[in-house]
Amino acid sequence: MTLKEELRQIAAEVIAESLPDAAVRRALGEIPAARGRTIVVSVGKVGWQMAKAASEMLRGAFDAGYVVTKYDHSKGDLEGFRVFEAGHPQMDQNSLDATQAVLDAVSGLTEDDRVLLLLSGGGSALFEKPLIPLEELQDINAQLLACGADIVEMNTIRKRLSAVKGGRFAQACAPAQVLSIILSDVVGDREDMIASGPACADRSTAREAIEIVAKYKLRLSPEALALMQAAPVSELPNARSLVTGGVGQLCEAARAACERRGYAAHVLTSCLCCEAREAGTFLGCIAVTHAQEGRRAYIAGGETVVHLRGRGKGGRNQELALSAAQQIHGLANVAVLSLGSDGTDGPTDAAGGVVDGASRAMLEAKGLKIFDILDENNAYAGLQACDGLLVTGPTGTNVNDVSIVLIGN
Amino acid sequence: MTLKEELRQIAAEVIAESLPDAAVRRALGEIPAARGRTIVVSVGKVGWQMAKAASEMLRGAFDAGYVVTKYDHSKGDLEGFRVFEAGHPQMDQNSLDATQAVLDAVSGLTEDDRVLLLLSGGGSALFEKPLIPLEELQDINAQLLACGADIVEMNTIRKRLSAVKGGRFAQACAPAQVLSIILSDVVGDREDMIASGPACADRSTAREAIEIVAKYKLRLSPEALALMQAAPVSELPNARSLVTGGVGQLCEAARAACERRGYAAHVLTSCLCCEAREAGTFLGCIAVTHAQEGRRAYIAGGETVVHLRGRGKGGRNQELALSAAQQIHGLANVAVLSLGSDGTDGPTDAAGGVVDGASRAMLEAKGLKIFDILDENNAYAGLQACDGLLVTGPTGTNVNDVSIVLIGN
Repeated sequence: MTLKEELRQIAAEVIAESLPDAAVRRALGEIPAARGRTIVVSVGKVGWQMAKAASEMLRGAFDAGYVVTKYDHSKGDLEGFRVFEAGHPQMDQNSLDATQAVLDAVSGLTEDDRVLLLLSGGGSALFEKPLIPLEELQDINAQLLACGADIVEMNTIRKRLSAVKGGRFAQACAPAQVLSIILSDVVGDREDMIASGPACADRSTAREAIEIVAKYKLRLSPEALALMQAAPVSELPNARSLVTGGVGQLCEAARAACERRGYAAHVLTSCLCCEAREAGTFLGCIAVTHAQEGRRAYIAGGETVVHLRGRGKGGRNQELALSAAQQIHGLANVAVLSLGSDGTDGPTDAAGGVVDGASRAMLEAKGLKIFDILDENNAYAGLQACDGLLVTGPTGTNVNDVSIVLIGN
Repeated sequence: MTLKEELRQIAAEVIAESLPDAAVRRALGEIPAARGRTIVVSVGKVGWQMAKAASEMLRGAFDAGYVVTKYDHSKGDLEGFRVFEAGHPQMDQNSLDATQAVLDAVSGLTEDDRVLLLLSGGGSALFEKPLIPLEELQDINAQLLACGADIVEMNTIRKRLSAVKGGRFAQACAPAQVLSIILSDVVGDREDMIASGPACADRSTAREAIEIVAKYKLRLSPEALALMQAAPVSELPNARSLVTGGVGQLCEAARAACERRGYAAHVLTSCLCCEAREAGTFLGCIAVTHAQEGRRAYIAGGETVVHLRGRGKGGRNQELALSAAQQIHGLANVAVLSLGSDGTDGPTDAAGGVVDGASRAMLEAKGLKIFDILDENNAYAGLQACDGLLVTGPTGTNVNDVSIVLIGN
């Protein structure tokens, strides 16, 4: 097997480990059985898959189940679950109806009961019960987006306008225990940012909220203004969270896959954010320096950026891999892969790219130069010409990117 | 002591270890004493310093010494040495006269004698005895530069036109032993490239030389054409080389300085070549990921590039450090330094920069944003505003750059 083939296998294993299913199984494995009733609530863009995995892990040992996901994101009926589809990124009446159904189901629980809350990206819009009319909430959201408020400021306001955000859903479940399994797709993994933290205590204060209203001159109704002054849910003794997935887990999966094959693996970073082609150059330079030191792997996760200059087709992972090929040219024992975990890198059908020490020569034999290809942002065609496209199809997860340098004997 | 202060100390130690003096001392420490006569020949831009260090190490135990360096690069008389200054990068009659004096000194040596050849950058022009008239050599050099020949092709031709390049100087010393101590300033450290290899066997063939002449339609006299066909010096049983200095040694010096202080240090690469600010971002991301793992250091050597967009003042090491400051913001136990080993980073009086987790806040308190500063290529002013300039003055060596991420407790 070539190093490129080995990297393609590693990528497949990393994706499998990073699917919502695997994340839910990992998390549920750590949770003890309930004494009373168990309600499963799965909210977010991959809510259906997380619910299915939980159902399998629990082997039917739950009393009611709810899925709230985006339109066209349900994959059919799921035994024991009511499946709702609703608006995202703009919430709609279906969001409110689904949320109300969930709230009805968790009312009247006892302290022996538990709610398993499975959260994935998109939950903010899908799971909402506004304390003000929907139209006013939409207007305030539009004001927040237009005024340049940052995400922390926006959430400080939004949590106060909601009966489920900022810990209020967990409060509604009390005295039942709420165990959140949070599939993170945000670099940095802040659990109170996922779906605006329905089961997370709210550490913001009324004073901060009022200052934000003043700072951006937000127009609020008297009712909304009164909500700004209300005390937040600052403690949630009945709630516990497990953050799973995320780019850190993606890197750990890559490390484990490399180590299973006998490579000494080192995670350089799990928050990479520089220009894609420069990251590829840096990783290629690392490979060149360590190429004579035996089987090893270097891993970098995160989300690089591409500043478009040309009119070609490609994506950040494809640019990173192609750029690395420029550096590792001629090294028989080095390959580099870069993968978008959702299977869609840029506006292409590829998930990323994989190159080795022969890739540049393959391109040059066809009259192609890597610098020219990158200047045209045309990495898709470049990788196609050196057998370097990595195509997985949509994977069903989205936990950023991972790049792997593999050095063989 | 703060981490920034610790990094400034480390930089001073790294520079001291990378001076020509230290390199010569290291290398001479490995060489046994001679039975017969010892002739010291020091050629290159830091020829005077290398000769001085050798003189001190040998404690006068040599029979004759020669320095051939660039105009204004001698620092005065040196006991036991004849000091020549000559033309660089354009060779001149003084180059030829100095070379002839050296050749006269090494003729008639016995197999018990030895020649210590100290080589630094610039030796190609400074040390030459052409086998054709100087004017024709200069014309052929101009043709080679104009036609787009690469450095290997150029040297293949030049070595054949010289009585000292391509191993011929060592041949002239035979049967005496020739020990070369080569101070490398080239990324990759190819010893036959430094001063065109006066004591290195020539692996090129007559056939290759003739093909290059044909490929670029070089105009040669019948005498020069005849030299193309001559056999090269393919074996040199009386010559031995030690390559010292270079960016690899610079990185090792940084690693040693960090390890002496109890940091687990890892050299990522010694051939870094990407955009400076992106390298800084990448290194900052590495720091963020590993900030909670205890005392460690990450080292990257090489030579980054800056694509100028603004009109400010700065250099690649200053941009790298400032860019890293954007990432490590708020981390109390992280600092990053980047250093040009020659003490001159860009067109400034600084050698580089050093930042920590407080640097960005210091700038923001003055209304300065790192992205804006970098977009203006104004890193010098930016570092000045956060106590981040690293000023060493000219160091007397030039072995590329090194960047160090230091993570404390």
